[in-house]
Amino acid sequence: MNKTFVKNIGLLCTPTGSHVHAGAEQGRITKIENACVLMEEGKIVYCGPQAGAPAGAEQGAQIVDAGGRLATPGLIDAHTHLVFGGWRQHEIPLKLAGAGYLDILRMGGGILSTVKRTREASEDQLFEKSMGFVAEMLSMGVTACEMKSGYGLDLETELKQLRVIRRLAESCPMDIAATFLGAHAVPEEYKDDADGYVDFLVNDVLPAVEEQKLAQYCDVFCETGVFDVAQSRRVLGAGKALGLKPRIHADEIDAIGGAQLAGEIGAVSAEHLIAADEEGMAALARGGVVANLLPATSFYLDKTFAPARRMVELGIPVVVASDFNPGSCPSLNLPFAMNLGLLRYKLTPEETLNAVTINAACSVGMEDRLGSLELGKQGDLVIWDAPDWEMVLYRFGSNLCRTVIKKGRPLAL
Amino acid sequence: MNKTFVKNIGLLCTPTGSHVHAGAEQGRITKIENACVLMEEGKIVYCGPQAGAPAGAEQGAQIVDAGGRLATPGLIDAHTHLVFGGWRQHEIPLKLAGAGYLDILRMGGGILSTVKRTREASEDQLFEKSMGFVAEMLSMGVTACEMKSGYGLDLETELKQLRVIRRLAESCPMDIAATFLGAHAVPEEYKDDADGYVDFLVNDVLPAVEEQKLAQYCDVFCETGVFDVAQSRRVLGAGKALGLKPRIHADEIDAIGGAQLAGEIGAVSAEHLIAADEEGMAALARGGVVANLLPATSFYLDKTFAPARRMVELGIPVVVASDFNPGSCPSLNLPFAMNLGLLRYKLTPEETLNAVTINAACSVGMEDRLGSLELGKQGDLVIWDAPDWEMVLYRFGSNLCRTVIKKGRPLAL
Repeated sequence: MNKTFVKNIGLLCTPTGSHVHAGAEQGRITKIENACVLMEEGKIVYCGPQAGAPAGAEQGAQIVDAGGRLATPGLIDAHTHLVFGGWRQHEIPLKLAGAGYLDILRMGGGILSTVKRTREASEDQLFEKSMGFVAEMLSMGVTACEMKSGYGLDLETELKQLRVIRRLAESCPMDIAATFLGAHAVPEEYKDDADGYVDFLVNDVLPAVEEQKLAQYCDVFCETGVFDVAQSRRVLGAGKALGLKPRIHADEIDAIGGAQLAGEIGAVSAEHLIAADEEGMAALARGGVVANLLPATSFYLDKTFAPARRMVELGIPVVVASDFNPGSCPSLNLPFAMNLGLLRYKLTPEETLNAVTINAACSVGMEDRLGSLELGKQGDLVIWDAPDWEMVLYRFGSNLCRTVIKKGRPLAL
Repeated sequence: MNKTFVKNIGLLCTPTGSHVHAGAEQGRITKIENACVLMEEGKIVYCGPQAGAPAGAEQGAQIVDAGGRLATPGLIDAHTHLVFGGWRQHEIPLKLAGAGYLDILRMGGGILSTVKRTREASEDQLFEKSMGFVAEMLSMGVTACEMKSGYGLDLETELKQLRVIRRLAESCPMDIAATFLGAHAVPEEYKDDADGYVDFLVNDVLPAVEEQKLAQYCDVFCETGVFDVAQSRRVLGAGKALGLKPRIHADEIDAIGGAQLAGEIGAVSAEHLIAADEEGMAALARGGVVANLLPATSFYLDKTFAPARRMVELGIPVVVASDFNPGSCPSLNLPFAMNLGLLRYKLTPEETLNAVTINAACSVGMEDRLGSLELGKQGDLVIWDAPDWEMVLYRFGSNLCRTVIKKGRPLAL
C-alpha cells in the first residue's frame, strides 16, 4: 500500500471545501498548528492536529518529517501557455524602445514568430522542452496547472500542442487541464479575415479537438485587433456545444465587452482583466465567473494591475496565475505572481493562498480532488522552509519550497 | 596543480579592463563565440576563441564542458545587509495598510526590531544563517559581494556582525567586502540625540573597527529623520581618517544633499539615489562616484525607480545590486535586480552586465582581480543555461545559472 505520513508540521494552512472562495471567504484560511497529514493510496485519510492522529499512522508508512515547517496544498497555476517553440528574448531591444504588444504583432513579430517556431518544432521536441518547464514548476510547489494551445493556429499544430499536453499529463506528476485556444491570434493565412479564421476553427478544428478528446476548455483572446465580441461568442458557443467549457482572455488591453461575454455565456473563468470596468465586473459577479488574474504579465509589460481588491469587494472569486508564455510573461514562477498578488493587488496573504489553491482548482475543474488539504482529497502537499505563509510571500526571489508530495508520494526535485 | 579548462562556451560575454565603465562604455561588452577559458592556480591563463587555446590546455585539467552555453564573469552584489537576526514578515499587514519605512520606524518596528533580534543572536547563529544566504547567492551565479553591519548600533553587536562577515569571507567561496554601517539608524539608547550617537560612533566604535581590521568601507544612512549631511560628513570623515573608504546611502527618500556629500568627500559609491536630482547627479559625475542602484527595493516598496538612464547619459558609472535586508528588500536574488535594471531602469543588456560585474567590482575594491574574464584575473566564471545574455534577463523568475566556477574550481551547488 502507498502510505505516507507527514508529521511535525509547525503550521498547516489550507482552504476548506470544494467551492470557490469569494468575498469574505477569499480571506479565510484554516490554520492548524502542530499538524500532521496521513495519506493512503494517494488520498488524504487524516489531516489535523498531530495529537489526534489515528493510531498506527506511522506503521508501514513512508515518514516525512516537516521539521516544524509550514505545509500548504500544492499550488495550482490556472493559466499557462506552456507548450511553445522558440523564445523571444530578441524582442528586448524593441521593448526597450517602447514597442507595445500590438506594435510588435504588427511588425510580424510577437506571437506570430512563436507560431512559426511552434509549427516547425516536432511533437517530441515540444514535449521535451515542456517537461523541463513542468519539472521547474514542481520544484516551486506547483502540482497542478492549466495549459493552452494557441501557437499553432492551424489544424495540425493545434492538435500537436494538445497532444503534447496530453502526454505531459500522462507522464508527469502534475495534474493538467487542457484548453483549446485556437482563437489566440489571427494567423497570416487569414490576414484581414478573422471571420474566415473563426469559420475554420468552428468547422474544422473544434470538431477534431472534441473528437480526439484533447481539451476540456475552449478559450479565445477577445481584444481590440484580435477577436471581437461577436467572433469570440461564436468560438466559445461552438466549443460549448461540443462540451468544451468556455474561458476567455478578456479586457487585457481594452474593455471591449469580454467580461460581459464571459458572464453571458457562463464562462468558468475570465482571464487578465487589467482593463475591466465596473460594468464588466458586475457581469462577472452576476455570472459567477472566476477572475483569473495574471500580475506577472502586468509586471513584465509595466502595465497597470487588474483591480483585484475591487473584485474581492464585489464577491468575484479571484485566482492568481503565471500566464507563462514566451511573449508577455516569460516566467513560470507562480510564487512570484503570488508576491505580486500581495505587493500590487494588495491581496492579503490569506486571499492570495485561496487564489492559488481552491479558487484555481475551481477554475480548472479540479476542486473535487485538489485545492485544499482535507479528508478524501488527493495528497498534494508542499512543505516550505518557512514558519508561516507570510514568509513565503515576503521572501520574494527565493524558492522556499522544500518538499513536494504528489498523490501521496514525495517527489525527488 | 589546480587547473580547470572550460571548453565549448557558445558565447562568452565580458567587460574588458579593470576600470569603471561609464557613459558609452557602460554599454560595451566583449562577445566571443566558441570560446574557452583555461585557469591555473585560480587565475585565468587563457580566455578567448577555442581555436586559439594553448596547446595542452586539457592536459591534467579538470574539464568543464559548457555545452555551447553562455559564460560570463561571476556576478558581484555590491550592496547587501546580509547579516541580521530575525525576519520582518509580520510587517506585511502594516505595509498593506499603507505604512511607509519611516512610519514603521516611528512605530518602534522596522529596523529597530531587527536590531533587537541581531543583538539577541549569537555570533554562531548569525554565521549559520548567513552561510545559508551565501550558498543561495552562489547558486544564482553571485561569486562576490559586499556586506554591511548596521543592525547592532552598539559597540559589541557591530563588531559581532563584522566578525561574522570575516568568518564568511574565510569559510565561503565568496569574495566579500566588509562595510561598517554603524550609522544605519539612531538606536533607542540615543533617541532624539543623533549627535550623541555620532560622537559614540566616532570616538568608540570606528577606532575598534579599525583596530581589528574588520572593515574596508564606512557607510552612513544620510536621510531625513536619520542622519543629516553634517552628521554623515562627520562619520565618513572619521572613517576616512582611519583608512575606511567612504560609501553612502544617499537620496533614497529625499534629496537632502547626500549625493553632493558623496562627491565632496570622494565616496567610492553612493547608494539608492531614488530621489537624486540634477544637482546631486552632477556632483556624482564630478566626483567620479559610482551610482549603486537597488531596483528590487523600489520594486518591493512600490516606489519610483532611480533615474538610471539619466546617470548613464551623465557618464556616472552605474551598479545594480540587491540591497538584501529584512525590511525594505527581503530578496537576495541579484538576477531579479538585473531583470529590473532592464525592465524599469531601461538599461540595455550590456549596460546591465557591466553594472553587476566590472562596475560592481570597482565599487567594492575588487576590480584588479574580479569583474571581467581576462588574462591574469581570478577564475570566477558562471555558465548559464542560455544561448545569450538577453535570455538570462528575459526569463525572470527562473534561475538559469548552471555551473559556478570560483577561483578556478567548479562548485557543487
